[in-house]
Amino acid sequence: MHAHCSCIGMDSCVIPLRHGGLSLVQTTDFFYPLVEDPYMMGRIACANVLSDLYAMGITECDNMLMLLSVSQKMNEKERDQVMPLMMKGFRDAAEEAGTSVTGGQTVVNPWIIVGGVASVVCQPNDFIMPDSAVPGDVLVLTKPLGTQVAVNAHQWLDIPEKWNKIKLVISREEVEQAYQEAMLNMATLNRTAAALMHKFNAHAATDVTGFGIIGHARNLAQQQKNDVAFVIHNLPIISKMAAIVKAGGNLFGLLQGTSSETSGGLLICLPREQAARFCAEMKSSRVGLSGAMGHDGGAGDGQQAWIIGIVEKGNRCARIIDKPRIIEVPYRGSVVSAQEGSNNNASPPEVQLT
Amino acid sequence: MHAHCSCIGMDSCVIPLRHGGLSLVQTTDFFYPLVEDPYMMGRIACANVLSDLYAMGITECDNMLMLLSVSQKMNEKERDQVMPLMMKGFRDAAEEAGTSVTGGQTVVNPWIIVGGVASVVCQPNDFIMPDSAVPGDVLVLTKPLGTQVAVNAHQWLDIPEKWNKIKLVISREEVEQAYQEAMLNMATLNRTAAALMHKFNAHAATDVTGFGIIGHARNLAQQQKNDVAFVIHNLPIISKMAAIVKAGGNLFGLLQGTSSETSGGLLICLPREQAARFCAEMKSSRVGLSGAMGHDGGAGDGQQAWIIGIVEKGNRCARIIDKPRIIEVPYRGSVVSAQEGSNNNASPPEVQLT
Repeated sequence: MHAHCSCIGMDSCVIPLRHGGLSLVQTTDFFYPLVEDPYMMGRIACANVLSDLYAMGITECDNMLMLLSVSQKMNEKERDQVMPLMMKGFRDAAEEAGTSVTGGQTVVNPWIIVGGVASVVCQPNDFIMPDSAVPGDVLVLTKPLGTQVAVNAHQWLDIPEKWNKIKLVISREEVEQAYQEAMLNMATLNRTAAALMHKFNAHAATDVTGFGIIGHARNLAQQQKNDVAFVIHNLPIISKMAAIVKAGGNLFGLLQGTSSETSGGLLICLPREQAARFCAEMKSSRVGLSGAMGHDGGAGDGQQAWIIGIVEKGNRCARIIDKPRIIEVPYRGSVVSAQEGSNNNASPPEVQLT
Repeated sequence: MHAHCSCIGMDSCVIPLRHGGLSLVQTTDFFYPLVEDPYMMGRIACANVLSDLYAMGITECDNMLMLLSVSQKMNEKERDQVMPLMMKGFRDAAEEAGTSVTGGQTVVNPWIIVGGVASVVCQPNDFIMPDSAVPGDVLVLTKPLGTQVAVNAHQWLDIPEKWNKIKLVISREEVEQAYQEAMLNMATLNRTAAALMHKFNAHAATDVTGFGIIGHARNLAQQQKNDVAFVIHNLPIISKMAAIVKAGGNLFGLLQGTSSETSGGLLICLPREQAARFCAEMKSSRVGLSGAMGHDGGAGDGQQAWIIGIVEKGNRCARIIDKPRIIEVPYRGSVVSAQEGSNNNASPPEVQLT
């Protein structure tokens, strides 16, 4: 599920064009459904494709292609119910991103596949090459971790031997809420973060997906021009997901940062003095999806972002400190606060580094 | 296997950009292996993706993405043998096309899938919108038909009940030769034809793929600005393939023009007075693949093209005349000439309309 882009260290490709200093930036991603709602799956797939552009601070997209595989195992009625919803979700997310889906292809195959291509023609100052972190920067993350855990826990509701291992630390209702929260996060575009990267002079960024937070932090560290190391102190995690992985015996390596994320947040290297303002503006931004999802989308209904680590001098590596602070990120619309979580490491969502 | 591009009637999408009159043209295609040689399969997939650009007279491509699905049913050794060859074939064809593959993705899936995306940023005079055919034009086709028949006949060598139906009209050796010929044709880029479309003032073109010659002729007719109809008189077909479909009881509708083609030729509307010169220059062009395939690639080892029909006044439809002339296209490197074919309709490859 990870790109094999030949542009070292980037999931996006930057191709110099023959016309006036312009570059073609492209990214592609396709994967298998992981949530049950086809409409949300379409939105998530689109958000995930666009995320590679957003990680470069690119806020516009000139065109998207949608690539679909319909499962041969679905009958015609199932296809007619599922595929239009998935396509609508994809298109709606593209529209929210200010772009449109013009082109694509559908094949028949044993498994459903959904994905796409995002392309944009840029001027040099439209994008931020992810290679300029300096010691003293801080690391900001724009979505909580734990999507893989939330999606799996939701499936375990129907698998007694799995459910029995975690039911002492989480209720069925909380699993449902965590799943909804994960879905909402995965479907959220990283576009606001991309715009704020320019405003607050970001030095480098990556999106967090299949390799988990530590995998992507390492990839980003490796492509830096300066001798830097990324040290992660805080792990913002969807509420109760840390408890689940502990109850299950360190599931997915979530607390080591190796748990896969789908359509995760951006991990951004920002000058220290800019980071708090970046987070504040993320929070006050109006997020399109909230409106689309029936939330009121009013002021302050923005996206949370967390300062999770620092950039030190080092040899282009990344690590999570021993006993990182777990930030329990509450379910939106729910009354569960971080302090009420079962995890002893729980902290308020906005944390300054110690 | 056919594109569902929202740009009516075109497999390529033309997106106006925010920069100086430029357009982004993109096309995507992906499909399942149909030949046994993974290297050739890679070349064919790449040629097929690029073909949509060539049909618009676009000769350059700024970037390609390669999209692969590795079959979960292959063991590691099989993967290591097959996938690198397929990727090499794709890359070699891209290189021959003067472009490169920068980006893409690989997933695991029950079936092998190979395909890609081709993108180019163009000035307005780089491409020819496929909508300007006029009565009096002629229709030119740049590769012979019959790839589906050749590929299937090759599989039937090992299926007695199938083979018994056709063995009276073709030898095993001829099936092998036809298969090689089909493979060579499918792997040939339509790039020379694209360049000559500009030189000889083509009015419209399409590539011939999954819908067969008549399907694509109809699609092309429907998008014309003028009241035209396309009438096809001649069907250039890989030698003996017409005999096979007759022996099998009108297999695939080849003689009705409905047999699928993979990476077929361009069907081009050309001013009548230009068409013969177009065909002559195709023939004298030096085709890159010949060199790559170990042929000598000398002068005259170019691609054949045939005048196959005319553009009349009409209501944007296309048809094949009753009893079209079947042009038996000999296997290259073989001594079978058109006249020696078993088909009574056999004619010399270059035919003027009567």
